[in-house]
Amino acid sequence: MGVFVSSDGTDAAGHEQVVFCQDRHTGLKAIIGIYSTALGPALGGTRFYPYGSEEAAVTDVLNLSRGMAYKNALAGLDLGGGKAVIWGDPALDKTEALLRAYGRFVESLHGRYYTACDVGTYVPDMDIIARETRYVTGRSVQHGGAGDSSVLTAWGVFQGMRAAAEHTWGSPTLAGRRVGIAGLGKVGKYLAGHLIEDGASVVATDVSPAALDWARTTYPQIDLVPDTRTMITSDIDVYAPCALGGALDDDTVPVLHAKIVTGGANNQLAHPGIEKLLEERGILYTPDYVVNAGGVIQVADEIEGFNFDRAKLRATRIFDTTSQILRLADDEGVPPVVAADRLAERRMAEVGRLRSIYLG
Amino acid sequence: MGVFVSSDGTDAAGHEQVVFCQDRHTGLKAIIGIYSTALGPALGGTRFYPYGSEEAAVTDVLNLSRGMAYKNALAGLDLGGGKAVIWGDPALDKTEALLRAYGRFVESLHGRYYTACDVGTYVPDMDIIARETRYVTGRSVQHGGAGDSSVLTAWGVFQGMRAAAEHTWGSPTLAGRRVGIAGLGKVGKYLAGHLIEDGASVVATDVSPAALDWARTTYPQIDLVPDTRTMITSDIDVYAPCALGGALDDDTVPVLHAKIVTGGANNQLAHPGIEKLLEERGILYTPDYVVNAGGVIQVADEIEGFNFDRAKLRATRIFDTTSQILRLADDEGVPPVVAADRLAERRMAEVGRLRSIYLG
Repeated sequence: MGVFVSSDGTDAAGHEQVVFCQDRHTGLKAIIGIYSTALGPALGGTRFYPYGSEEAAVTDVLNLSRGMAYKNALAGLDLGGGKAVIWGDPALDKTEALLRAYGRFVESLHGRYYTACDVGTYVPDMDIIARETRYVTGRSVQHGGAGDSSVLTAWGVFQGMRAAAEHTWGSPTLAGRRVGIAGLGKVGKYLAGHLIEDGASVVATDVSPAALDWARTTYPQIDLVPDTRTMITSDIDVYAPCALGGALDDDTVPVLHAKIVTGGANNQLAHPGIEKLLEERGILYTPDYVVNAGGVIQVADEIEGFNFDRAKLRATRIFDTTSQILRLADDEGVPPVVAADRLAERRMAEVGRLRSIYLG
Repeated sequence: MGVFVSSDGTDAAGHEQVVFCQDRHTGLKAIIGIYSTALGPALGGTRFYPYGSEEAAVTDVLNLSRGMAYKNALAGLDLGGGKAVIWGDPALDKTEALLRAYGRFVESLHGRYYTACDVGTYVPDMDIIARETRYVTGRSVQHGGAGDSSVLTAWGVFQGMRAAAEHTWGSPTLAGRRVGIAGLGKVGKYLAGHLIEDGASVVATDVSPAALDWARTTYPQIDLVPDTRTMITSDIDVYAPCALGGALDDDTVPVLHAKIVTGGANNQLAHPGIEKLLEERGILYTPDYVVNAGGVIQVADEIEGFNFDRAKLRATRIFDTTSQILRLADDEGVPPVVAADRLAERRMAEVGRLRSIYLG
């Protein structure tokens, strides 16, 4: 896997900049991927992970940073797409000096890349990184941070689901529908609340006894089932994957009862081609990176000085974006994921082009 | 070949930063290697070359940028080591837009890297790149550039040779010695002039009839021989490789008549281990990157606003640095290339460390 050339010898995805950073004293090995800055500085989290090889780290950062470009473009943000990986075991290698060495490299890009939390990095880490660079979001509330980003992630997923409901059933509500949530983590919990308030009936599953206890106590009306398989083959109208990636694969899609899939999980399609399988079965799939953009909307708002109402308003617009994508998919006869990609690419090209108008 | 891990699975050289840059519209694919900024911004030229693979480009930029760190450290410059490669055929791919796209990426590093000419890039290219970035040297004289850098390269080689002569024969002069110059390109020509002025007798060889004509006209006293082999096996005291790299290999070293090797060519040692072969034969080899640093000293001087006398004074100090390295080699019982590396590493560590003294 190269940066310019893929392992199969074809041109790679065409990233604008990929920055390998190393500090021998702290052991830092980081790669910052900037897919595009057409819309503004590249924003995306830093993943701290013990990759098996340099190639695995490169592959991950290239895929993730490209995904962020599309997500940020469709979230209506003036931000390009980037992501970073720190190659190491956070449990063993994460030190103040290493995080700050990383912060200096983020600073060296002078705002072309803004970082945030991702797998293996947390709000206190962002506060440490911020001691070396201004270009950090996802900070603690005491430092102007937006706090728990799952609040707006769930809100955005709910908006995307409302748009899908309108597209499918003519009315932007889940009232009277049965929604199955896989995963009652933070996003799943908040989503359950919005759905119940909207008048939906909720069925859910989770492997964590604590999450199930929470559900029994907070929302006794939630129907708890032992596993995802049971849930998705039951009589649900909407399936909301809110746990691990790859929820939609060759085993699950053929048995899926729902007419709509809208959830908070990342990378819900296990592999390319699944979107066609969904379409063949008449299941409407709202692209994950469109509907779960509330989180990045929330942390992105920190750049301007966090304002919850403003961020929530922007996350609410995920309803409009999802509606637009579903209409475009119909108009152009393509699955919604293809329509979403096209819309993102158009925005990057059309808005990015505007910088050619000289401002003195 | 990775950036962090070599192809043999061991840790790579430990570069501080390696930046892959791409612009899809112009076709730019560039890699900027920054080995170290311990002594200051990384300075090194941009090579424009049609590498056979991304791996070949990465290998080249990693080796070259590391070499520049050592060269700049020993040249006494307040500059770290870097180098860049543009992957493409300069004859086909070099356009104003591509060079300027590259310039924008150089600018994006905000002075952590200064570029200059190298194989495949020329002074007019630097003037184009400079329309997008401040961090360019090797510019045209009209734009404050230092002009032909072979003037001080040759001057520095001459100084290194004088130091080697003093170390070997007790007096810092080539007067009465026979010096064989392989390659009467720009550096070889200026070097011949300095040697003749110093009282040496010069024997030379070149494949170019124009270079031989120049020698016959300008310095009829130069003994011209048909090839390098004839020259190095003849009765010479000093061998000055001033043409291609790899001049010292398993074939040439055993038959070399000279007691000293000092020349302007890059990468004179064909492979690691040759320095030991030279030592076994009692031949004093002054490391190429120490004695040919006059060129980088010249372009580096542009950063402050070019002053030829100041740059020449610094290039003259190559005499002192070479003497110091030869003494260190004797003291520590190692070949001069090892002593030079140690001296460079000490300067990077000791002077680099000074930034820990906070200046408010």
